[in-house]
Amino acid sequence: MSQDELKQLAAEKAVEYVKSGMKVGLGTGSTAAKAVAVIGAKLKSGELKDLVCVPTSVATFDQATSLGIPLATLDTVPRLDVTIDGADEYDDNMDLVKGRGGALLREKMVELSSDAFVCIVDDSKYVKGLGISGAMPVEITQFCWEYNLRRIQALPELAGCRAMRRTTDGPTPTPTSTEPYVTDNGNYIVDLYFDAPIKDAKAAGEAINALVGVVEHGLFIGMASTIIVAAPEGIKVIGK
Amino acid sequence: MSQDELKQLAAEKAVEYVKSGMKVGLGTGSTAAKAVAVIGAKLKSGELKDLVCVPTSVATFDQATSLGIPLATLDTVPRLDVTIDGADEYDDNMDLVKGRGGALLREKMVELSSDAFVCIVDDSKYVKGLGISGAMPVEITQFCWEYNLRRIQALPELAGCRAMRRTTDGPTPTPTSTEPYVTDNGNYIVDLYFDAPIKDAKAAGEAINALVGVVEHGLFIGMASTIIVAAPEGIKVIGK
Repeated sequence: MSQDELKQLAAEKAVEYVKSGMKVGLGTGSTAAKAVAVIGAKLKSGELKDLVCVPTSVATFDQATSLGIPLATLDTVPRLDVTIDGADEYDDNMDLVKGRGGALLREKMVELSSDAFVCIVDDSKYVKGLGISGAMPVEITQFCWEYNLRRIQALPELAGCRAMRRTTDGPTPTPTSTEPYVTDNGNYIVDLYFDAPIKDAKAAGEAINALVGVVEHGLFIGMASTIIVAAPEGIKVIGK
Repeated sequence: MSQDELKQLAAEKAVEYVKSGMKVGLGTGSTAAKAVAVIGAKLKSGELKDLVCVPTSVATFDQATSLGIPLATLDTVPRLDVTIDGADEYDDNMDLVKGRGGALLREKMVELSSDAFVCIVDDSKYVKGLGISGAMPVEITQFCWEYNLRRIQALPELAGCRAMRRTTDGPTPTPTSTEPYVTDNGNYIVDLYFDAPIKDAKAAGEAINALVGVVEHGLFIGMASTIIVAAPEGIKVIGK
């Protein structure tokens, strides 16, 4: 099976956690989009009924709207039964790095308001320790972004990281564009690159969030209740 | 002396903390504006030389520019000698409520980067306990603001508060406008109103900042090194 077919299987497995009448958070990214498509199809066929869904980005809102999925926000539906979303890294503790797609703030808000968070990944996202496969994103205000980039980089909890403001090229240490990327919330993203895993991800996240001007970071610690992994040997379910 | 003349005296007293060659943070609001004017006059007369100043708002930037004060940001001048700014409340611990003017995030960033923070107030700003004289502001992202307003209001550390999104009328519990106020950073402000003082302001601030979607709050705890109070009986200096 191709990687794409495996992702599709994982998405279908994740949607098994959705039952009629539930309030469901919809993640952002290519893997989450497959789950959104499955939900849309099951609503159309009548296999699922009476869902209310909360999207985590403008892109997901647009996709769900085009599929006729009933939508709301946390303003009117503050507690969700389950959220299905992808991740950029996962480790043996079921901790995650997210946000390479730029939607980390909305994703974290929605996932923290969910009784269950079902994460879908392919096995290339597995890491021995968080932070080593690429960018670990931090959303910061535009005001004095360079000052805050340097303060984040200087945190002892992040020793050895290299911080770069994300450009419109997306999360890459070698951008060709100099145009800054702006999030759905009007902020910048600073991507952190590490040579070795983050030693204590919880402490690192707390140190980052303690800086005035930081809006949120991409470390999702203790949040996933289930991880569904698509691998060449098949689908693996970690957790509940 | 009028309240205005007293504020002027307090501003002049505060500017005594500024010496030639210093890096100086410039606050926002009517009292801070008097100090900015004094700094401008002393630079013009030659009494002060070689200052570099960092403004905390677009309004202060404009005033300082019109006075010919040399300006920078924390991006190029990350460490300041002293910042002069007003406050909305001060208590016996020298703790403050700030942000009724809307610039709390930039003010906090600049004041935390200063070796000294000289706060100028008139004695009407004195409170027995923080939170009782009017709005205690919290800056939040626009996304799901109502959800976060309700979560802030429900925090046990803020028991008894009433939360309202600020409108273009400014911080008032009885606005006539329904148009939301937007900060220099593109966010909303939720104003909290209390019937009794906040019991533990440090714990309250930490609980607020732990919510995803909160950018910063107006509790400035342990930050002021000096408070200069303008009162009918004259100028009083608290602290160093």
